[in-house]
Amino acid sequence: MAILVVGSVAFDGIETPSGKVERVLGGAATHFALAASYFTDVRVIAVVGEDFTAENEAVFTRRGIDTRGIEHTEGKSFFWAGSYLKNLNEAQTLRTDLNVFQSFSPKIPAEYQDSEFLFLANIDPVLQADVRAKMPNVKLVCGDTMNYWINDHAENLAKVLKGLDGLLINDGEAKLLAHDANLVRAADKILSMGPKSLVVKHGEFGATAFFSDRSFAGKNGKVFLPFRAPALPLSEVVDPTGAGDSFAGGFFGYIASQKDLTPATFKKAMFYGGVMGSFAVERFGTERLQQLDPKELEERFALFRELSHLE
Amino acid sequence: MAILVVGSVAFDGIETPSGKVERVLGGAATHFALAASYFTDVRVIAVVGEDFTAENEAVFTRRGIDTRGIEHTEGKSFFWAGSYLKNLNEAQTLRTDLNVFQSFSPKIPAEYQDSEFLFLANIDPVLQADVRAKMPNVKLVCGDTMNYWINDHAENLAKVLKGLDGLLINDGEAKLLAHDANLVRAADKILSMGPKSLVVKHGEFGATAFFSDRSFAGKNGKVFLPFRAPALPLSEVVDPTGAGDSFAGGFFGYIASQKDLTPATFKKAMFYGGVMGSFAVERFGTERLQQLDPKELEERFALFRELSHLE
Repeated sequence: MAILVVGSVAFDGIETPSGKVERVLGGAATHFALAASYFTDVRVIAVVGEDFTAENEAVFTRRGIDTRGIEHTEGKSFFWAGSYLKNLNEAQTLRTDLNVFQSFSPKIPAEYQDSEFLFLANIDPVLQADVRAKMPNVKLVCGDTMNYWINDHAENLAKVLKGLDGLLINDGEAKLLAHDANLVRAADKILSMGPKSLVVKHGEFGATAFFSDRSFAGKNGKVFLPFRAPALPLSEVVDPTGAGDSFAGGFFGYIASQKDLTPATFKKAMFYGGVMGSFAVERFGTERLQQLDPKELEERFALFRELSHLE
Repeated sequence: MAILVVGSVAFDGIETPSGKVERVLGGAATHFALAASYFTDVRVIAVVGEDFTAENEAVFTRRGIDTRGIEHTEGKSFFWAGSYLKNLNEAQTLRTDLNVFQSFSPKIPAEYQDSEFLFLANIDPVLQADVRAKMPNVKLVCGDTMNYWINDHAENLAKVLKGLDGLLINDGEAKLLAHDANLVRAADKILSMGPKSLVVKHGEFGATAFFSDRSFAGKNGKVFLPFRAPALPLSEVVDPTGAGDSFAGGFFGYIASQKDLTPATFKKAMFYGGVMGSFAVERFGTERLQQLDPKELEERFALFRELSHLE
C-alpha cells in the first residue's frame, strides 16, 4: 500500500572523517523515499529548483518512486552544508539555503489521493499540518521534526503532534521537546502531547519505541512495553547524513507493506529501520540506498536478529 | 562453582538528583559480590579499616558470601564521594581517600584456592596481577579497570590485559584504552592487547560484547558476531554507583553457575548483567541488591527478553 511522503528534496555538501562531497542529492524526503521503496510504493511531495536535473529525478524513478508530486519551480533547490569532523553523532551546520522551500505551498496530485500511509518528514510544521489536512482519509500518519521547530515553532508543532500515530525523533530532540533529561519520563510527556507511539533513535545504540495506552497496543487494557531495536556495530560511518530518515523509511515502509499493524509488525519495522539506517551510512549521500539488493537487505535483517537475540 | 573477586570494599558518599547519602557501604567488590551471589558462591579479597562494622560484614554473609578474605587492618576503610547532579551518566568525584588500600597486599586464604572463576574488579593493576599470579589454576578470569589506570598505569595494566578471558569496561574507557572513537575499531584494538572477549557497557543503552578469534567462540574458524544486550528503560535512576560492577556480577555469576561457556551462555550472561545493573540503580548504594527475590530476578530477565526480542 502506498506511502505519501512530504519533506525536503535537496542538495547537501558534507564533510566527515571519511572524506568530503561538495554537492550530492539529499534531503529528508529523498532518504526516506529511497529506503521505503524497498518495501512498498512511495509518492513524494516536495519542491525543487532549476538545478534539479533529469539524472537527479532518475534516482527516484529507477526505484519506482512516484515523482509527480515534486514541483519544479524557478530558483535553486534547498541546499544544506554540514560537517561531522568534530562529532560523527551530530552535524555542525555550515550553511542552510532554503531557496525554493521558502515559498513552498504543497499541492497533492489527484493520483496521490488514495495513499493510505502518510509520512511528514522534517519540514516546517505548518507545511506538515497543511498536507495532513489535505489527506483526511489516510490510515496511518507518522512524522519527524527537529530542534529548530521544537524551539521556535512550538505551537505549530503541537498541532501536528496531536494527529500523529507515530513520532520518530532522536534522543536530543526527545529530551528537548519534553524538557526532561530522562528518556522514559520524556517519552511519557511526549505521548501525552498526542502521538500514539514514539520512536526515539539513539544512533549507534539503536532505537527505543514507547507506546501510549491509546495506541494499537493498548487496546486490551494491557500496557505495551517499550521495545528496543539494536543498531549494527560499524567500523566506519562514512556519512551519517540521512540515517534517521532512512530509519524512518525502512520502518514505515515495512509497516505499509504489511496487512495489519500488530505489535509483531511494529517490532520488525524497528529492525528494518535499523537495517536501512545501517546501509545509509556506508556511503556518502544516498549512494548506498540507490543500489541495494533485496537479498542484502534480508541478510542484514538476519544479522540484526543474530546480534540481539538469545537464540 | 565459586568466584573469587578482588577489589574495593568501601564507603561511599553520593549525591544524585534523587537525594543524598553521607556514607553507605560500597566498593566495586561489594556490588560485584552481591550481584553474583544470586547465581553462585562468592569469595572476597579486600581490605577494610576499623570503621567496617559487624553490620557491614553481615551485608555479605547474609547473602552467603565468604568474607574470610576480607582483611581487617588499622586505619580507615577506602572512602569515595561523588556527585551525579550534573550528569547521571558520569560521576564527578568529590573525594577519594584510599586509606587502608594504600598499603594493601592481597593474601589468599587456603580455603579460596579451589575457586574456578576469578574476577579482578577495578583496583591497581599491580594488585590485579598479584592475585592472578596467586591463582594459577582458575578456569576463567575476567576483569575491569578505569580511566586512571589506563592513563597513568598503562604498562601495569597491559600485563593484566594479556591474561584476561574477558574485559568489562564502559564506552569512554574502551575509547580511551584504544585511542579510537569508533567502538568497533576500539574493540578490535583492545582484543589485540590480550582479552579474549570484551564487554563494553553503554549505561542506559545496554552493552555490546566483542570476541577475538582466540575466544571460545572462534574455535571452529567461525568469527563470532558481536552481541548487544539491552538495558531497561527506567523513569528514575536513583543512584548509578556500582551499576557497572553489578552488571559484571550478574554476568560472571551466571557464567560461573553454568556447566560450559558456550555462545548461548555468554549471551544470557549479558542479559543477567543488565538485569542486575537495572536493580542496582533503583536504590542508593547496595540496598536493592541486598534484598532481591529470585522470582523478581527471573521476571526481570523475562522483561529484558520481551523488550528486545521479535517474538
